[in-house]
Amino acid sequence: MTHEAGDHPLRSDELALIDRYWRAANYISVGQIYLLDNPLLREPLQPGHVKPRLLGHWGTTPGLNFIYAHLNRVIARRDLDMIYICGPGHGGPGMVANTWLEGSYSEIYPDVPLSEEGLRRLFRQFSFPGGVPSHAAPETPGSIHEGGELGYALMHAFGAAFDNPELTVACVIGDGEAETGALAASWHSNKFLNPVHDGAVLPILHLNGYKIANPTVMGRMADEDLERLFLGLGWEPHFVSGEDPATMHRQMAATLDSVVTRIHTIQDSARDNRDALNMPRWPMIVLRSPKGWTGPKEVDGKKVEGFWRSHQVPVANARADASHRELLEDWMRSYRPQELFDADGRPHADLLTLAPTGQRRMGLNPHANGGLLKRELKLPDYKTLAVGVPAPGAPVAEATRVMGKYLAEVIRLNADARNFRLMGPDETASNRLDAVFEVTDRVWMQDIEPFDTNLAADGRVMEILSEHLCQGWLEGYLLTGRHGFFSCYEAFIHIVDSMFNQHAKWLKVSRELGWRKPIASLNYLLTSHVWRQDHNGFSHQDPGFVDLVANKKADIVRIYLPPDANCLLWVTDHCLRTYDRINVIVAGKQPSAQWLDMAAAARHCDVGIGAWDWAGTVAGDEEPDIVMACAGDVPTLETLAAVDLLRLALPRLKVRVVNVVDLMTLQSEYQHPHGLSDEHFDALFTTDKPVVFAYHGYPYLIHRLAYQRRNHANLHVHGFQEEGTTTTPFDMAVLNSIDRFHLALAALKWLPDTGADGAALEANLNARLAAHTAYVREHGEDMPGIREWNWTHGR
Amino acid sequence: MTHEAGDHPLRSDELALIDRYWRAANYISVGQIYLLDNPLLREPLQPGHVKPRLLGHWGTTPGLNFIYAHLNRVIARRDLDMIYICGPGHGGPGMVANTWLEGSYSEIYPDVPLSEEGLRRLFRQFSFPGGVPSHAAPETPGSIHEGGELGYALMHAFGAAFDNPELTVACVIGDGEAETGALAASWHSNKFLNPVHDGAVLPILHLNGYKIANPTVMGRMADEDLERLFLGLGWEPHFVSGEDPATMHRQMAATLDSVVTRIHTIQDSARDNRDALNMPRWPMIVLRSPKGWTGPKEVDGKKVEGFWRSHQVPVANARADASHRELLEDWMRSYRPQELFDADGRPHADLLTLAPTGQRRMGLNPHANGGLLKRELKLPDYKTLAVGVPAPGAPVAEATRVMGKYLAEVIRLNADARNFRLMGPDETASNRLDAVFEVTDRVWMQDIEPFDTNLAADGRVMEILSEHLCQGWLEGYLLTGRHGFFSCYEAFIHIVDSMFNQHAKWLKVSRELGWRKPIASLNYLLTSHVWRQDHNGFSHQDPGFVDLVANKKADIVRIYLPPDANCLLWVTDHCLRTYDRINVIVAGKQPSAQWLDMAAAARHCDVGIGAWDWAGTVAGDEEPDIVMACAGDVPTLETLAAVDLLRLALPRLKVRVVNVVDLMTLQSEYQHPHGLSDEHFDALFTTDKPVVFAYHGYPYLIHRLAYQRRNHANLHVHGFQEEGTTTTPFDMAVLNSIDRFHLALAALKWLPDTGADGAALEANLNARLAAHTAYVREHGEDMPGIREWNWTHGR
Repeated sequence: MTHEAGDHPLRSDELALIDRYWRAANYISVGQIYLLDNPLLREPLQPGHVKPRLLGHWGTTPGLNFIYAHLNRVIARRDLDMIYICGPGHGGPGMVANTWLEGSYSEIYPDVPLSEEGLRRLFRQFSFPGGVPSHAAPETPGSIHEGGELGYALMHAFGAAFDNPELTVACVIGDGEAETGALAASWHSNKFLNPVHDGAVLPILHLNGYKIANPTVMGRMADEDLERLFLGLGWEPHFVSGEDPATMHRQMAATLDSVVTRIHTIQDSARDNRDALNMPRWPMIVLRSPKGWTGPKEVDGKKVEGFWRSHQVPVANARADASHRELLEDWMRSYRPQELFDADGRPHADLLTLAPTGQRRMGLNPHANGGLLKRELKLPDYKTLAVGVPAPGAPVAEATRVMGKYLAEVIRLNADARNFRLMGPDETASNRLDAVFEVTDRVWMQDIEPFDTNLAADGRVMEILSEHLCQGWLEGYLLTGRHGFFSCYEAFIHIVDSMFNQHAKWLKVSRELGWRKPIASLNYLLTSHVWRQDHNGFSHQDPGFVDLVANKKADIVRIYLPPDANCLLWVTDHCLRTYDRINVIVAGKQPSAQWLDMAAAARHCDVGIGAWDWAGTVAGDEEPDIVMACAGDVPTLETLAAVDLLRLALPRLKVRVVNVVDLMTLQSEYQHPHGLSDEHFDALFTTDKPVVFAYHGYPYLIHRLAYQRRNHANLHVHGFQEEGTTTTPFDMAVLNSIDRFHLALAALKWLPDTGADGAALEANLNARLAAHTAYVREHGEDMPGIREWNWTHGR
Repeated sequence: MTHEAGDHPLRSDELALIDRYWRAANYISVGQIYLLDNPLLREPLQPGHVKPRLLGHWGTTPGLNFIYAHLNRVIARRDLDMIYICGPGHGGPGMVANTWLEGSYSEIYPDVPLSEEGLRRLFRQFSFPGGVPSHAAPETPGSIHEGGELGYALMHAFGAAFDNPELTVACVIGDGEAETGALAASWHSNKFLNPVHDGAVLPILHLNGYKIANPTVMGRMADEDLERLFLGLGWEPHFVSGEDPATMHRQMAATLDSVVTRIHTIQDSARDNRDALNMPRWPMIVLRSPKGWTGPKEVDGKKVEGFWRSHQVPVANARADASHRELLEDWMRSYRPQELFDADGRPHADLLTLAPTGQRRMGLNPHANGGLLKRELKLPDYKTLAVGVPAPGAPVAEATRVMGKYLAEVIRLNADARNFRLMGPDETASNRLDAVFEVTDRVWMQDIEPFDTNLAADGRVMEILSEHLCQGWLEGYLLTGRHGFFSCYEAFIHIVDSMFNQHAKWLKVSRELGWRKPIASLNYLLTSHVWRQDHNGFSHQDPGFVDLVANKKADIVRIYLPPDANCLLWVTDHCLRTYDRINVIVAGKQPSAQWLDMAAAARHCDVGIGAWDWAGTVAGDEEPDIVMACAGDVPTLETLAAVDLLRLALPRLKVRVVNVVDLMTLQSEYQHPHGLSDEHFDALFTTDKPVVFAYHGYPYLIHRLAYQRRNHANLHVHGFQEEGTTTTPFDMAVLNSIDRFHLALAALKWLPDTGADGAALEANLNARLAAHTAYVREHGEDMPGIREWNWTHGR
């Protein structure tokens, strides 16, 4: 629907004020892109006033400023708690301009005060070495959203709104971003927002019609189709469309009044009648305004305003070319700076009456600096959930099922605080975390049938078949000061590789800014992993996400491969206590042997790596003939079994078993804070003995982490070799040479001389491999006992 | 709209035949999931007839079979050229069942004939070690689409339809997949399909209501909202909904008749009136049918049919539990196998009259084995486009701009064949490939304004701001036998990491199947790379995609880092001649020094690595004191400049410069077909001298590739250290210690003794670094001349 200006008339003084505020933001935006000096145009523009490198994006900015000014008006008038998510990241100048105007910028960065000198610095620093980036970024006050890679604005907005009932998240989505997959899926987030306990998201789809060099798909769609599309998606679209400023101000003000009222009506109605929850039809705004609005209509005879040529820097040669410089000066003066700033270069006092004050200013809203609001989770005593391990290998347990009990306790203990959520792409039960459904449900706002299970309008588990949404919702939730976990099939976490990258970059920069307070870590459980994709096959087998993770700044990332349930408990508990990190846990869900009792698991995980004397044939400092190392649950089992085979056949062989939980211990202490000292590493891995290392993922990662170690030349890593199919668990190990037989064969290969016993063992191992292969091809299942570990029988 | 059965009445014999065909496919699907033996149920089921591991997915399968049977009817009746894309990959049993029924399976796999023994083998091999996967996969006849990771069905369908005017691609999309971002964006593909030159895509959105353990978002949407949604997206939705087979058959037949007629009307109209092209409203089908349709209604008292419990194996314990086995047997007999198969176990002859014959069978349609149809590209003589290089470093050129001229020629030469497309997320011009617009346009089916540039209904360039769509369209295009290139900002290619993974897996498996013919390689140009993101910043700086690529099977992947325009020309030409590979080219778009004339570039690139004697101070086999190696355009410039600094300060120093174009040469010849022999490697890198290696990306990759080399311990790699921001190009290099000063300092560090001259140089280098930093912070641009290379001046 379109609101006629007459619906909610804007008084003429309000109209004048809002237009003046908008002009001020536009002026400051252009100034950032262009000027080194002469910020108030007190003298005619000289070449030296113009930056030598013009780097910035004008096209989207006036629309963003228009929205910001109008949001200010409704915030101030209704005392709203609101943040602004700026999807068009190229609108960095607009976000900076507005937060400076409202005063929040100078409160955070006192060296950029509200004065002519402040304005000069503000202009100069933009897209300038040592200055601020051209996108909305961690440096930008009021932002929880990096404006670099597009697609994630709306999911971040929803993440921020969950469990923040008083918050309204205004989310501007550019028509470029609207073409991405992540954004296209995000519209369905309305099916997961509970009007009683969550806040509101107000999407503002900003159609300025063009991307870098093309029209946009939605920009060229008819209003009728857009209306049907968004109605179909469950929204109530409101259109604001045009280019005449006065008309547009009236339309936008009326529309905002109307949609905010509608939001409050929905919330009041839901909160008064808590049982009758139907999915509300939330309002949204479709804003059509020209790209590069109020900028030069034409440059060098070519169309600029309302076209893609206004995307970046419309007047490209303003330093060297006098006519371009004149065009720029005319453009800037068209905003009438004399009406905007006082003699000291401060915004006129009456101008500021438009904006809210204090923490209602969007640049200082604490939700956008979530660490300020973060409360520690109440965590259960994980030891009470430990699996009893009377002897290594004796009990069998499903590691993630035990973890699920822990997470259920976390949910129970923090139910009142409503600050923890569990995300998963329809895999929470498949990943065996279903204990959580004893204490909570999956959020579901559409109809619920009588036979449905564990669905409710209110719940702590969020499931949708979109890894993007799971990741994006969680990011928004964490960035606004809450906690969470994302469980995912290991192979498909690659779907969000790029989102992981961007979040890691956000954390890296945030940590360099004193005013950004630490937020809870982003925790991943990767399960249904490469070695146990029995129901699926090659497409579901990829352990390479951690390779990507290891590229990121050492301060930010951690990778854990707990070998059993008690280690997984310790690691889960540990990760939930950390902040400003990305923790990746890889653990299996299938029944498997347990190795360490809780006390031993805690000691082992606390160091992150250690020799398991009970599994080898040497103790303490005694020098082994060979080190058999392992990381990951399946590699650990196979390594221990290989040692068993070696021990029985070569009774005098001295074997040390080393298990790695924290992969970063393998790097040197200079590369990573968890890196072992060289002394410690050498003590475990020796300086000259062969090391056969069974690793969960692609073997290169181990080489890459450990290449600086003294004994690296003797390190022989077995891992996933991209040989996968639908087969038995043991056969998967065999196909990739990570099974006990291949590991024992590798030991024989690298040991100096194992004599006749070695030769006999080699023949035996090869025969057993052949027998295995014949058996599984015949019977379709693993040979009985072939996946067991026999140490105790051998004793 | 919903078609009443009366619209196009199905005769009762047609109804009976189609139902019988459907029952046959369902029977064969269940048999694959469950049976080892007794395929025709000639005797009561015994435990030994049931597989020990029940791995497969029933839920989606009956719906897929229903669609397949009905498509067979319209193909046969109208002699359609049609392929079937099975989005719900879990429907593997259905695809196998149908291709066996129609006879195409046995033609490809003669060891699985149309007989009782063939049926036994068909059942046994499914999800069985050494058998076939549980998803649609390369092994599945008629498939171009792996059914593992969800999201890409519709983009593959469009890729297949482009430039195939006689083809209709039926694309089944599950309601699980419909929640993914990639699929959500795909609906807009209709804005890029030209009814004159392209074929048709018929999406069939299959709403069976449930995922693994949850309802689906679209399954719970009201028909009214679905209708609005798809109308808004530009489609014409037709609904088929219910569970009574006879009614559903009538509805589906009438609907298919209607939509096929509609498709032909659109095509005829467009092809008769070529100038009046408006975007047509193509038909699509929304099919609502119960999950696990015709399977057990309940098992152990719990709802199964029409619920998520039918997702996998509805009767879980049929081997061990007699009551479960009885349930299974009743279920299978409910399809009345005696009416489906003759005494030899062949499908009854009259049953087969429903299916088309020969290559009209969807299992044997050659479009689904694209290598059969692939024609070689006509390629221009790249030498005619070479940049003249009178002396190394003398000319300046933009490498990708030169490549653009080459691609324009490729497009011109193959214009009539219509078998080459260029994909990019709105970045073709930004990436300076705009020469292509001299010979073609961007495809655009929505309205075109008079001031728009290079848009047309017919064009070879496809741009949408979705890396997913660029990748998916191209995959579909290649898999059906055509050629293409995807140019992308380097950082954002991570958005399709997971799609790359899946395509690499598809190629790996396809190459193991004799009947799948080679398809053209998937070629990436990654540009606007980490070192020259002047307009953006940290969010746009990530060179890690190649790390992911290097994890894949060596046979499949290649990574090229051409140092200049002529090398890029050679590499581009080379990549377009290859097949069944994924080629990644990383090259800059900014003006930069050129090093090799065309002949030298060809020699250098052909080997992929080589010493540049002209850039060092030793020639041929003379042993250097140090090797300065480089890979990538910016690292090459900085390395050559560092050598210049060293040479001037330390005139007796012997330096060899090694440049790497083909990154895989660094691996050993045992690891990769392009790997250098150890002798060759040692001859270049020495066995004991320091090597300072300036690499374009994350330095670990070089260590990982070269860790087995003799001189690895002396290899010191400089690369991206995740230090990025909006700054000058040279400052980016300095922040990551990959600039000439840091490289020369590294050489001094690792050289044994450079005496007083070395100390003086060190002081000089540090001073110049400090001067640089002060200058850029003051002036916002690089010091004049600081990015030049001065060798010729020094001579």
